[in-house]
Amino acid sequence: MSSIEKSICDIVNELQGDFGDISDKNYIKIFNHPDKDSIIDILKSIRKIVFLGYFRNSSIKVCTLRNNLSMLVEDVIYKLSKQIAVVLESESENCTDLSEKAMQITLAFIKRLRKIKEYIDSDVQAAYDGDPAAYSIDEIIYSYPGLFATFVNRVAHELYLLDIPIIPRMMTEYAHSRTGIDIHPGASIGRNFFIDHGTGIVIGETTVIGDNVKIYQGVTLGALSTRGGQMLKNKKRHPTIEDNVTIYSGASILGGNTLIGKNAVIGGNAFVTHSIPAGAKVSIESNELRYDYVSDKVVKTKDSIDDDKWFYII
Amino acid sequence: MSSIEKSICDIVNELQGDFGDISDKNYIKIFNHPDKDSIIDILKSIRKIVFLGYFRNSSIKVCTLRNNLSMLVEDVIYKLSKQIAVVLESESENCTDLSEKAMQITLAFIKRLRKIKEYIDSDVQAAYDGDPAAYSIDEIIYSYPGLFATFVNRVAHELYLLDIPIIPRMMTEYAHSRTGIDIHPGASIGRNFFIDHGTGIVIGETTVIGDNVKIYQGVTLGALSTRGGQMLKNKKRHPTIEDNVTIYSGASILGGNTLIGKNAVIGGNAFVTHSIPAGAKVSIESNELRYDYVSDKVVKTKDSIDDDKWFYII
Amino acid sequence: MSSIEKSICDIVNELQGDFGDISDKNYIKIFNHPDKDSIIDILKSIRKIVFLGYFRNSSIKVCTLRNNLSMLVEDVIYKLSKQIAVVLESESENCTDLSEKAMQITLAFIKRLRKIKEYIDSDVQAAYDGDPAAYSIDEIIYSYPGLFATFVNRVAHELYLLDIPIIPRMMTEYAHSRTGIDIHPGASIGRNFFIDHGTGIVIGETTVIGDNVKIYQGVTLGALSTRGGQMLKNKKRHPTIEDNVTIYSGASILGGNTLIGKNAVIGGNAFVTHSIPAGAKVSIESNELRYDYVSDKVVKTKDSIDDDKWFYII
Repeated sequence: MSSIEKSICDIVNELQGDFGDISDKNYIKIFNHPDKDSIIDILKSIRKIVFLGYFRNSSIKVCTLRNNLSMLVEDVIYKLSKQIAVVLESESENCTDLSEKAMQITLAFIKRLRKIKEYIDSDVQAAYDGDPAAYSIDEIIYSYPGLFATFVNRVAHELYLLDIPIIPRMMTEYAHSRTGIDIHPGASIGRNFFIDHGTGIVIGETTVIGDNVKIYQGVTLGALSTRGGQMLKNKKRHPTIEDNVTIYSGASILGGNTLIGKNAVIGGNAFVTHSIPAGAKVSIESNELRYDYVSDKVVKTKDSIDDDKWFYII
Repeated sequence: MSSIEKSICDIVNELQGDFGDISDKNYIKIFNHPDKDSIIDILKSIRKIVFLGYFRNSSIKVCTLRNNLSMLVEDVIYKLSKQIAVVLESESENCTDLSEKAMQITLAFIKRLRKIKEYIDSDVQAAYDGDPAAYSIDEIIYSYPGLFATFVNRVAHELYLLDIPIIPRMMTEYAHSRTGIDIHPGASIGRNFFIDHGTGIVIGETTVIGDNVKIYQGVTLGALSTRGGQMLKNKKRHPTIEDNVTIYSGASILGGNTLIGKNAVIGGNAFVTHSIPAGAKVSIESNELRYDYVSDKVVKTKDSIDDDKWFYII
Repeated sequence: MSSIEKSICDIVNELQGDFGDISDKNYIKIFNHPDKDSIIDILKSIRKIVFLGYFRNSSIKVCTLRNNLSMLVEDVIYKLSKQIAVVLESESENCTDLSEKAMQITLAFIKRLRKIKEYIDSDVQAAYDGDPAAYSIDEIIYSYPGLFATFVNRVAHELYLLDIPIIPRMMTEYAHSRTGIDIHPGASIGRNFFIDHGTGIVIGETTVIGDNVKIYQGVTLGALSTRGGQMLKNKKRHPTIEDNVTIYSGASILGGNTLIGKNAVIGGNAFVTHSIPAGAKVSIESNELRYDYVSDKVVKTKDSIDDDKWFYII
């Protein structure tokens, strides 16, 4: 046996030892894992339904919208019911076949597609109205990451309400990965929602957001503390945002009892841990800046590094 | 008809109703949408041109650089002119064939490739000079997200200047998705530009940036307000950054009249809404921190959560 | 010659001119570049090893865990040794065949897989214990971006310790691209590490992190200044974080001499540039917020934009 073969054998034996118990316990469940690729396909098909005519395969040349719509809906039903069955079965104590239950849940979800479309149409309009850099409706549908993250939340939220485990979070984490926007499937969001830029946004599980709300990059709608870990499960830990609120970039709004009243505006970088009354504009007191003057020449010597007393960050 | 077939039929009918008007209006334009995959391919080919010899297909074994370069340029011309024709035609009132116009614009773009290469070469050098963690030029070209986002901006900006709709923004949003760096195609950027880390950077449409500028993660070069929405279109809403400026992480510089003078340094987290003179170093006054001491033991009881008066965030 | 052919010819000639010297110098090394796709495949196979039974190909229906494990280990050895040989040879002055040296390094890495698995198992548990929104262990493994970024750091860090160039950084930048979390391969991280949300996190090359540390989105563990560029290489520029520390979102901890003592808690948005004693809770003094009241009606006229004296950001 060559040294390489021996090394492979050794590491496999060692790792196998580590997996010993687990492999027995999970042996049957090992084919009961949800498939990420399939879940992404489901999202893509739902997107084609909601934005009918957009995101077509370039290979499909002729197809009536109606036939296309039927095919897409069938595709979602087939794939989604299969994935739901997988996660329900992997959660269940006994090895019952749960494909029929999965189909019922899938159909319940499908009936909500119209509502999802209605809400997402309102979001597209809100983005166009709110963003001076928006060139056209098409540009928003094809390229705005905030719209994509909102769309995925609206789909995942309906599955979350139907008590499907794992799949909703896999969907929102796919959106998080593509957009830098992290909206938990539990978050409930009203009509005409507009996220601009969006990178770094975090919206927690028990957040409730009204209609016509506008949120910029780096905003956290979070909990005051999660040191309780699993003990805090199912508690309202995240804020409530009422209608027509605008939250500018980098603001943090924290706590399950924190309520931002109608028409309020939260300024950039504000750190808010208590309720804000309706109609208030909240901003950080113009932060004190310190000025030091250097010569009008760029200094690149080693010495200039050490005597820096003010702060900069890699 | 089974219950599933009926459900499909119902949802298709309902959704079809919602799409009724739209589908008539857009019936012809439905195949006139730009193709995201093709636009990504164009970016990849341009990257192979600009970094000739890098990013080759591992299947291509022998090929002279010159032949390879010709092939790549032809590939870009073919694909880009097709996509430009699609977006121009979908914008045009009457159904004219705009493929010839698209080809002219494409050739005008191709002539600017040399300038793009010259600028991006200067960016690679700036990254190497500026980052003590940079191991080699190759590492920067293969792995630095800031360089990728800058490269995409340089390509998209030339198309933006040629008045191409939608495609430039699709390009920069692809970079945004991959890097967390959101640079609008309208932003104009000088030589030797260096972005370090980069996640969360937002650079708005009317930003103007000089030579030798260095920007870190989480920086916003933004507008003071966008509440005017579409009414603010085409106004200078974003700042001007002069040569040799460094902007450290988390800083926000806002407003169309805000000018950061030559050689200025903006410290981490500074919030700047007015002009800064040349040569100034601006930093936040060392922010007041409050200390509370707890015992040297980790407290994990439920009680310790409730009496926390200071703030932490999920 | 058509005008298109002439344009292609012209641009190729021009660009060829720019590449002249480079192409001669690099002609042999041109096939000596690491392959990103292959490096991503290696990470995927290692992930299947560490989370055995998860992330299986849906096409593989029957396979014993033991056989599967052997195959995966062999796959990593084959691909990784090839990529290591490529980067070592591209760095070497003379054209020696370094495939044997590459294989030795690969086997040294493979022997560390067990330690990587042990640490990453502890991270999964830390995520479950620390996050009230965590539904199950499976959900964490399938969807938590912080776990993915930590996993990639643990793999890349071992390759970094084995002095492999470029590949470790390509790995961590792949994770950065997918998660918005930027951990340099040089950073050393203890057991039970938990990143929540994660977008915007930056952890620098010389950072040292103890056991049971918890970090939230937007945290920077950075250097005080990098104006020295390459002169600062190999110096300790980033902080040391001791056991059981929690760092809440948006905090920045800067400097190679900065040490955060055991059990300390750093509050949201704190900007820390000096050491913090063990057991301290540090938070920003409740930031002053300014309130302005507007009527309870949304004002959307043009005028209302101009008289805004407080700050908001695109």
